[in-house]
Amino acid sequence: MARVICAGLGPGDPDLISLRADRLIRSARHIAYFRKKGRAGQARRIVEGMLAPDAIEHAMEYPVTTELPFDSPAYNALLTRFYDEWSTRLAEIARSEDVVVLCEGDPFFYGSFMHLHVRLRDRATVEVVPGIPGMAGCWHASGQPITWGDDVLSVLTGTLAEDDLIRHMAAADAIVVMKTGRNLPKIRRALVAAGRIGDAVLIEHGTMPGERVRPLADVETAECPYFAIVLAHGRGRRPGAGDEA
Amino acid sequence: MARVICAGLGPGDPDLISLRADRLIRSARHIAYFRKKGRAGQARRIVEGMLAPDAIEHAMEYPVTTELPFDSPAYNALLTRFYDEWSTRLAEIARSEDVVVLCEGDPFFYGSFMHLHVRLRDRATVEVVPGIPGMAGCWHASGQPITWGDDVLSVLTGTLAEDDLIRHMAAADAIVVMKTGRNLPKIRRALVAAGRIGDAVLIEHGTMPGERVRPLADVETAECPYFAIVLAHGRGRRPGAGDEA
Repeated sequence: MARVICAGLGPGDPDLISLRADRLIRSARHIAYFRKKGRAGQARRIVEGMLAPDAIEHAMEYPVTTELPFDSPAYNALLTRFYDEWSTRLAEIARSEDVVVLCEGDPFFYGSFMHLHVRLRDRATVEVVPGIPGMAGCWHASGQPITWGDDVLSVLTGTLAEDDLIRHMAAADAIVVMKTGRNLPKIRRALVAAGRIGDAVLIEHGTMPGERVRPLADVETAECPYFAIVLAHGRGRRPGAGDEA
Repeated sequence: MARVICAGLGPGDPDLISLRADRLIRSARHIAYFRKKGRAGQARRIVEGMLAPDAIEHAMEYPVTTELPFDSPAYNALLTRFYDEWSTRLAEIARSEDVVVLCEGDPFFYGSFMHLHVRLRDRATVEVVPGIPGMAGCWHASGQPITWGDDVLSVLTGTLAEDDLIRHMAAADAIVVMKTGRNLPKIRRALVAAGRIGDAVLIEHGTMPGERVRPLADVETAECPYFAIVLAHGRGRRPGAGDEA
């Protein structure tokens, strides 16, 4: 029995991949990665120039090109079949040879690999290599610590209902909002309602070419960049720590 | 002008250090790290065997060995002087030579380096290299994703008031509690009150020798391990995602 190994790629800069993931990727004979149909794929782009010359690539193309509502039965049925099929194919490869599955950021933090993981864990040897989460690349791009002292950090997704966003934003010291895209106008309204719009920054392509950091208040709401995260930094709950900044 | 470079070390396993941090650490002539008086120091232990033979080590020893209350003026005054002195020394080295400051986990996520960072940024060239946060090492040790779909993740510190802990725990899907130690009994009571004790795991020494994962309900409250984090995993808010598990 060989293994299915999911390698976390980190936030985008190939120099931020871990030693272990780098070694696994460079020596892999089978490499699999998710991508949208007709796209190169962000994970594949990160490892450009790293793969062995004889590496066999398995592009796992999502069966939907437009964004169907997440809660539609049609969307769920398509995705379920997609993950079922690919987990079967990967398990078959892993009977004789290791296969390395690429995953942006950290695979166990909102990663797509987990949908394969739950299907594979009882029929293959699965290993998962952590990576630096995409949000960490974004707070580094901002040049400031995300949390100090006893700050409470809330990580939210832009897909949440506006009322939920407001409630969580108002309760937190530091805020990260993932899955921005077309949710950006809603995220902005929620930050205004929670009194945090003045602290919010939009970070596009953190640690990658095209990295861009802007106050969210200055961004046109019509824009919905894909590789973007919204942050509001904590200021340090501990007496003294905040003053030092 | 040379640089002060803070290298994030990740959760503890040296194989999980990024390529960039690894290269910087191995080639550094000046290496600085925090440690408690009389201890080897966790950061220094992680890089054991990696330093250049002629590397000059600067052990930044905390001026307090017992835990004074964080909000005591005496504690703050001692720490302020400590950070002032070391930032001056590092800035002096960086006039002529690079100095690499080691930092466990990710330097911009509850890291001690930020206290040097705020003092250095106007008088030295400072670079910060992200690392895999310690909490990510812990959720990997647990073998399960921390967040799925639209899960809300709250990162809390065990130093918070019990009522605050309960309120945040009750509102979140996934929970991380840092700074456990002697706060463990309080954290446990808060998880019981928030209805999440059944999901909570205690992870000691994640990704390091001595790694140990236990349901928190089974742990004696008298224990207060130092390198430990408490997690409660999210189960996936998105319709379908939770069902797939």
